[in-house]
Amino acid sequence: MSSYPYPMLDKPSMIWSRQTDKSKDIKVHEWIETAGEAEPNWEDYDVTILGVPLSKSSISTSAASENPEAMRQAWKAFSTYNLDEEIDLAQLKAIDLGNVKQHVTNIEYTHQQIQDAMVAMRTNHPHTLPISMGGDHSITAMLVKGWKQAHPNENIGILQLDTHFDLRDPKLIGPANGTPIRNLIESETIQGNHVHNIGLHGFFNAKELKDFADKAGLHYTTMKQARKKGISNAINYALHQLEEEVDTIYLTVDMDVLDIVHGPAAPAATPGGMYSEELFEAVQIAGQHIKVKAMDIVCLDPRKDVGEQSVKSAVHTMLSFLTGYCKR
Amino acid sequence: MSSYPYPMLDKPSMIWSRQTDKSKDIKVHEWIETAGEAEPNWEDYDVTILGVPLSKSSISTSAASENPEAMRQAWKAFSTYNLDEEIDLAQLKAIDLGNVKQHVTNIEYTHQQIQDAMVAMRTNHPHTLPISMGGDHSITAMLVKGWKQAHPNENIGILQLDTHFDLRDPKLIGPANGTPIRNLIESETIQGNHVHNIGLHGFFNAKELKDFADKAGLHYTTMKQARKKGISNAINYALHQLEEEVDTIYLTVDMDVLDIVHGPAAPAATPGGMYSEELFEAVQIAGQHIKVKAMDIVCLDPRKDVGEQSVKSAVHTMLSFLTGYCKR
Amino acid sequence: MSSYPYPMLDKPSMIWSRQTDKSKDIKVHEWIETAGEAEPNWEDYDVTILGVPLSKSSISTSAASENPEAMRQAWKAFSTYNLDEEIDLAQLKAIDLGNVKQHVTNIEYTHQQIQDAMVAMRTNHPHTLPISMGGDHSITAMLVKGWKQAHPNENIGILQLDTHFDLRDPKLIGPANGTPIRNLIESETIQGNHVHNIGLHGFFNAKELKDFADKAGLHYTTMKQARKKGISNAINYALHQLEEEVDTIYLTVDMDVLDIVHGPAAPAATPGGMYSEELFEAVQIAGQHIKVKAMDIVCLDPRKDVGEQSVKSAVHTMLSFLTGYCKR
Amino acid sequence: MSSYPYPMLDKPSMIWSRQTDKSKDIKVHEWIETAGEAEPNWEDYDVTILGVPLSKSSISTSAASENPEAMRQAWKAFSTYNLDEEIDLAQLKAIDLGNVKQHVTNIEYTHQQIQDAMVAMRTNHPHTLPISMGGDHSITAMLVKGWKQAHPNENIGILQLDTHFDLRDPKLIGPANGTPIRNLIESETIQGNHVHNIGLHGFFNAKELKDFADKAGLHYTTMKQARKKGISNAINYALHQLEEEVDTIYLTVDMDVLDIVHGPAAPAATPGGMYSEELFEAVQIAGQHIKVKAMDIVCLDPRKDVGEQSVKSAVHTMLSFLTGYCKR
Amino acid sequence: MSSYPYPMLDKPSMIWSRQTDKSKDIKVHEWIETAGEAEPNWEDYDVTILGVPLSKSSISTSAASENPEAMRQAWKAFSTYNLDEEIDLAQLKAIDLGNVKQHVTNIEYTHQQIQDAMVAMRTNHPHTLPISMGGDHSITAMLVKGWKQAHPNENIGILQLDTHFDLRDPKLIGPANGTPIRNLIESETIQGNHVHNIGLHGFFNAKELKDFADKAGLHYTTMKQARKKGISNAINYALHQLEEEVDTIYLTVDMDVLDIVHGPAAPAATPGGMYSEELFEAVQIAGQHIKVKAMDIVCLDPRKDVGEQSVKSAVHTMLSFLTGYCKR
Amino acid sequence: MSSYPYPMLDKPSMIWSRQTDKSKDIKVHEWIETAGEAEPNWEDYDVTILGVPLSKSSISTSAASENPEAMRQAWKAFSTYNLDEEIDLAQLKAIDLGNVKQHVTNIEYTHQQIQDAMVAMRTNHPHTLPISMGGDHSITAMLVKGWKQAHPNENIGILQLDTHFDLRDPKLIGPANGTPIRNLIESETIQGNHVHNIGLHGFFNAKELKDFADKAGLHYTTMKQARKKGISNAINYALHQLEEEVDTIYLTVDMDVLDIVHGPAAPAATPGGMYSEELFEAVQIAGQHIKVKAMDIVCLDPRKDVGEQSVKSAVHTMLSFLTGYCKR
Ligand SMILES: [Ca+2]
Ligand SMILES: [Ca+2]
Ligand SMILES: [Ca+2]
Ligand SMILES: [Ca+2]
Ligand SMILES: [Ca+2]
Ligand SMILES: [Ca+2]
Ligand SMILES: [Ca+2]
Ligand SMILES: [Ca+2]
Ligand SMILES: [Ca+2]
Ligand SMILES: [Ca+2]
Ligand SMILES: [Ca+2]
Ligand SMILES: [Ca+2]
Repeated sequence: MSSYPYPMLDKPSMIWSRQTDKSKDIKVHEWIETAGEAEPNWEDYDVTILGVPLSKSSISTSAASENPEAMRQAWKAFSTYNLDEEIDLAQLKAIDLGNVKQHVTNIEYTHQQIQDAMVAMRTNHPHTLPISMGGDHSITAMLVKGWKQAHPNENIGILQLDTHFDLRDPKLIGPANGTPIRNLIESETIQGNHVHNIGLHGFFNAKELKDFADKAGLHYTTMKQARKKGISNAINYALHQLEEEVDTIYLTVDMDVLDIVHGPAAPAATPGGMYSEELFEAVQIAGQHIKVKAMDIVCLDPRKDVGEQSVKSAVHTMLSFLTGYCKR
Repeated sequence: MSSYPYPMLDKPSMIWSRQTDKSKDIKVHEWIETAGEAEPNWEDYDVTILGVPLSKSSISTSAASENPEAMRQAWKAFSTYNLDEEIDLAQLKAIDLGNVKQHVTNIEYTHQQIQDAMVAMRTNHPHTLPISMGGDHSITAMLVKGWKQAHPNENIGILQLDTHFDLRDPKLIGPANGTPIRNLIESETIQGNHVHNIGLHGFFNAKELKDFADKAGLHYTTMKQARKKGISNAINYALHQLEEEVDTIYLTVDMDVLDIVHGPAAPAATPGGMYSEELFEAVQIAGQHIKVKAMDIVCLDPRKDVGEQSVKSAVHTMLSFLTGYCKR
Repeated sequence: MSSYPYPMLDKPSMIWSRQTDKSKDIKVHEWIETAGEAEPNWEDYDVTILGVPLSKSSISTSAASENPEAMRQAWKAFSTYNLDEEIDLAQLKAIDLGNVKQHVTNIEYTHQQIQDAMVAMRTNHPHTLPISMGGDHSITAMLVKGWKQAHPNENIGILQLDTHFDLRDPKLIGPANGTPIRNLIESETIQGNHVHNIGLHGFFNAKELKDFADKAGLHYTTMKQARKKGISNAINYALHQLEEEVDTIYLTVDMDVLDIVHGPAAPAATPGGMYSEELFEAVQIAGQHIKVKAMDIVCLDPRKDVGEQSVKSAVHTMLSFLTGYCKR
Repeated sequence: MSSYPYPMLDKPSMIWSRQTDKSKDIKVHEWIETAGEAEPNWEDYDVTILGVPLSKSSISTSAASENPEAMRQAWKAFSTYNLDEEIDLAQLKAIDLGNVKQHVTNIEYTHQQIQDAMVAMRTNHPHTLPISMGGDHSITAMLVKGWKQAHPNENIGILQLDTHFDLRDPKLIGPANGTPIRNLIESETIQGNHVHNIGLHGFFNAKELKDFADKAGLHYTTMKQARKKGISNAINYALHQLEEEVDTIYLTVDMDVLDIVHGPAAPAATPGGMYSEELFEAVQIAGQHIKVKAMDIVCLDPRKDVGEQSVKSAVHTMLSFLTGYCKR
Repeated sequence: MSSYPYPMLDKPSMIWSRQTDKSKDIKVHEWIETAGEAEPNWEDYDVTILGVPLSKSSISTSAASENPEAMRQAWKAFSTYNLDEEIDLAQLKAIDLGNVKQHVTNIEYTHQQIQDAMVAMRTNHPHTLPISMGGDHSITAMLVKGWKQAHPNENIGILQLDTHFDLRDPKLIGPANGTPIRNLIESETIQGNHVHNIGLHGFFNAKELKDFADKAGLHYTTMKQARKKGISNAINYALHQLEEEVDTIYLTVDMDVLDIVHGPAAPAATPGGMYSEELFEAVQIAGQHIKVKAMDIVCLDPRKDVGEQSVKSAVHTMLSFLTGYCKR
Repeated sequence: MSSYPYPMLDKPSMIWSRQTDKSKDIKVHEWIETAGEAEPNWEDYDVTILGVPLSKSSISTSAASENPEAMRQAWKAFSTYNLDEEIDLAQLKAIDLGNVKQHVTNIEYTHQQIQDAMVAMRTNHPHTLPISMGGDHSITAMLVKGWKQAHPNENIGILQLDTHFDLRDPKLIGPANGTPIRNLIESETIQGNHVHNIGLHGFFNAKELKDFADKAGLHYTTMKQARKKGISNAINYALHQLEEEVDTIYLTVDMDVLDIVHGPAAPAATPGGMYSEELFEAVQIAGQHIKVKAMDIVCLDPRKDVGEQSVKSAVHTMLSFLTGYCKR
């Protein structure tokens, strides 16, 4: 595999075989190209998709490591044409780079590979929009650190859709999936007041994490507040707030923001959360914003799915985000 | 089985055994009679129910063939009394005619039997309301052709609840479940502008099908539009539009119009769709309209169900439609 | 087990082992204490939780008997802190008393134990708020009879969230899970006009039960009516109505009030029901009302659950009720 | 339902509808007739099949109550012709009598109905072979008591295939499913030394029950012993032993005798048990024995099944037994 | 897709992406090559693998159409090295040709494509060993007809591992999955006495089919007989018998020959069948025989599988057969 | 938790609450005591049970981390009395020490805790028999290293029941679950010729691992060989061979040695493996051998189980081993 452009990446485990020569009215698996032996001509591409199959860093056992492959399997069922918006995503050129290499027993090493992968993408083809498919939420800290390393002068904001603050202390449990936001703040990659979390609800965050959030100046809109004002208003409000302060907004979608009924595959799924149509609307609005320059989708364990409900929603989330991107 | 009235039908595989002599406060399985050896006195009946267990004609493998039997098993859990509307369906006399005979390897033959069954019903007892339980969506083309054959002078309109246009080209794949509306238009059974589809959304229809729809003059209200204006308004709007132009409105409910969370058993279920309460409201309104003279429920594969969520919703859909019918 | 205070109770089958000495930012299983060998000092406690693992009295076979243990297992995933309301339930002192003893073959005997358990609680520590985890709905009749026995001069009202009236005739089927409200009325434990049921819908109640309800003066708000006026308005209306007439309002939550998609584990779950967020809002409002003095959660069969969707919702229902209680 | 012959029976809930006039090469559901309104001419029949849907008497919650209906559904997949033995069961005339009426809350009452049903069968048509489909193992005590009541002078032996002794004390838990053999011994319906149990193994019987067995003179062959000598030898040995001493051998098959892999639906299924082919061989041999005059199949909870593995095995067990019967 | 060598084939839907350059100690998915754009140099290859995803021809609804893809996914978990026999399958060069094109609604057309595919393989590269992954058993008739068309002077024998005779009448149900052996006999492709079926058992074949078999001179060894004499003896006996009379032995493995516990995914799985280790032994012996020149594996519906038990067994069956082939 | 004796251990998460005062005829959960606040009097104990919930070290994602808790839940269904052998395990005094502390992101740290736990047990109470419940197979290397650290002069042999050699190279993937035997050999904890593996079969070991095994002098008996000579003979042969050479035999049971049908929960389960009754026989014989001084059970992922088939087999394996131990 000597000629493959990124040493920290594995090629996708399988390649969809195109059955037709059609260039329009195609399915998503016919649209997203797959990185092969030779280095792509990066200038041709608008969007790069990266698998980050790490979930050993999860507090409770998770097979979110299998999500990138599951999403690749599931996107075969989607067309590129979005009827609601009359937009064909095939106007974008997209490539699947494969997966970040995983060490079986050394999480720190894997985390470094993830950061390196983002640095490489931002260095080699900074004009492409990077979409990452987790893995658990620990990867967001590494991906944002990679962005910061590549763009040290940028102020980075985080728009987080999540049931949780993710402010647990990495000193106690290492860079696990409950810690990425705190990790980013404490490493001074971002500022606390450049984070806006939407979707918090219920009995799933300790009081001390809320206190930390308040002290750090985090912004957050609970699920109840978001529903009251309307999801689109909540997102627009957050984007307006962040755009004043930062150069880049990184959108991170923890699939456990969905109600347990709408996203059963998130290991920490709970009742009382967001509905999938609300999530699609939220990310489409975010995708439309000029400063939103990267996104990831995390914490979806396909083994816990019911049918393919959650994996299909994850793919739809990615495509809705790109629909917004096309509308810029 | 010589005396059974319809040569193209099999008797229901089993007959619910009545345990009581009650004539009110009964369950649906005690209310719907079952066709037996002797020909019924058709004048007594208001509603005929027909199973159409064909899903070999599906693009992807489907066991929608098992839906008629699954609905019959499930309706035992329903009373005839609708508390919301204070209406007792038992005021209607209903009979289950059994299933259209299926050929194991000759789909064309089976399709002809389906058409013949509708012709027979319209000829022998045109006063009864025919409800068909699919099977996949290919059967709708045959049922409507049967109606047209029996009533050649009628203009037939289609009110379709579906995630899909069903406008794929039968020349390429035969009369499969992605083709019924195109099949009906191209065979000049109906006119394109006599179709109104409600529920289209997301990434599940190719651009070329939308172009075909627009060219053929089809009407459609996407899920997003329907939610914005309210489901009842969307349905009423479609009914008003059709009633101007046609003599008969045929209501066809593709269960994949439901969100994947509400109707997991539809082989093509997707996130972002209709909720079951919205569907029940929609069909009740349609059932109330004087020109709606037939309905079918298609594309539900009970093997994909979660518990009996989807099958129970299919039965409820049928009963909500009949509730509307009682309110005429 | 000689020293355990209640002869009609079994100790909980297992005791969560506390791993920390933390007294705040704890999980629910670290907060709720477990009754042990010695009699607790009742004055310290605000809330008592009782398991009532009886479902032999169900009309259709149910493993709701396993619900108390399932809820105990599931509450480990919840924190005591409610972020939406900024309330920490740990301000209340709560104890799990274990389960009412069950006879393997004598339901009448078990029913008596249930009534005795309520009498004992109301006699020994009437200041605590009793929460009961069923079991099927037959237990509500016994628990309310126990309350009446302990407080013979009180007028007791029932706020029932249910898809069903529960007015079937105990003379025909004994004190089964379809009968508790009728049982309470006919035994003159309560008056018919002191019941308010919210959540009735669809084809799941016989006409004769509605007639009985109307004759007995029961109040009810169907699901459709509740949605139209808003769940919080419906609940507040019911509470206002009851508070005029009764001394104590007993809140009983039949989990089948949830839509089958939101509460798949209720044996009688149906489409068209309440959503979990609506249920949480409803019980929180009830918990806030000064006259609501007891609650139970019934008819949840964990074996029918999808993941832990329903059991988690049951725990959330209990915690939302207690959130309201804290806001008094 | 006035004319139905047995007041303690419900008709089968549904009747298979015959689709052909064939009298040979038929399926089991076309062969077994169903009791209807009129009294059958008993002399025509060789075999009567009775459903006993009682499992409220189970120590742990069980839906074995659903087994009779599940077996009826499953036998549609079986032909009457046994290729291994070149025997067609259709040479016997068989009738399904329906189910013993169940009281929702009074187990004692239901137990009496079960006993009465056996008395009625032995009185009205003693020449037929009664096969009972449980239900849990408590029913065996009632069925055998019914036999004794009808034939007071007979010595009855029990050939029991079971992982358990079923010698728990009815004084402690009532006539539950762990007690039937002790119940029969203590009520002097049978003698302890007229019982032979095959299939005991592992860690699933308390020492005190073995002591009781030894004291009562019970015979038993553990699974390990049975495998060592061969299942057919073990069964033949047990039959020879019993035939010396008793007039009638009652065969009771507790499906938990199967290894958990072969019979996953038995609530108490364990590893280390019998394989299905061994069970079929065992019951065929028993069926061939002139003194084996009744059989039952108990403790199979279809909700716990994997696919239909266990229910199909239960039907096969019944048919293998009848194959033996034909070979007499 | 103009340059792809076989017009009646679709390329495999996906291609495993090799992650290493290793040529030994590889996994099966690294070993089996995949047909691409250019025509392979057929002389290099020893084994060709063909997917035949047809199951519309099944009597009961089946998703055996998904088996070829499921086997391709599953063989990633197997190494080429067989430790039991110390044989590395990688000594053979194998290529996956993809799938026979499927018509959505015309089974006759698809059947012709299947026959054509076999003709093409036997014409273009008759030195390769063809292995076909069904689909249902109807395909065997087409594949053997294709062989006969390519080799009209050969006498073809069938070694069939099956619970069923597959002798139902194609005149009644068309060339469905219950008919292939009769189809081949009646079309004079083979002679009845050149068939040997091993694995028949239980209540799953009508008497008239046995009569047909006896009249046609078919050989068969029931499961019971095979176990008594030992599986390897039974297979060797059948091979010896056939080798006398025929030029080519075609091995067809209907996965429903497995006990329902060992092969839960076969739609017609039954208790009392073959164990997987017995099946592996049987096919390895067959693979070793010089006259066995083709094999297929049919009637496995992956949607019915438990975990991947059956699909893994199907892959193991193919590899065990090839192990035998290496030992020639 | 200051007074808990082992700093590297967490207390069991829950404690079974004894409902009776019985000291005989008890269930396993009443027999095995649970370590609490105070240090036990070690002299009283014969057997110590340790949970090692580590599976982050697995090559493919595994929730074997949940096995210790699953076994604790499941052993409630077992009695201490083994009827087959007429032995009551309650004659041994056993204590559950809880679980080795797990770091969320640092596997190396956790591995050290595991080794330390074994050292502590061998130092503080070397007379007790240590049984460890994994976790994945990587833990065996750490446990044996701990033994060696505590007993540096002992020669340690390994009796391994496994489908795999576990000889992959730790230099490539770290101390993962495919490496423990090689890890132990290369670290000179044990000698290659002091290992005997029983159960290897099929296509699940690379040729290079067999070559390594042969070079290192490992002994192994394939599944096929073991079945041919009889499992008990194979085990006895291995024990005799090892007893000549070593002081201590460590028994390690990888649950994937079971056939996929008998042990579906092993992540690497395959067809063609051992049956559960064979495994129970094997470990009972090993338990009886004087030099077998420790055992572990690994690689069982309860989330993959079918019912509780595999977890129950794991508990039975532990109890069968202890049965042998009692027979010394
Ligand atoms: Ca998160
Ligand atoms: Ca989260
Ligand atoms: Ca559709
Ligand atoms: Ca459609
Ligand atoms: Ca209810
Ligand atoms: Ca109720
Ligand atoms: Ca038993
Ligand atoms: Ca028993
Ligand atoms: Ca076949
Ligand atoms: Ca077959
Ligand atoms: Ca291993
Ligand atoms: Ca292994």
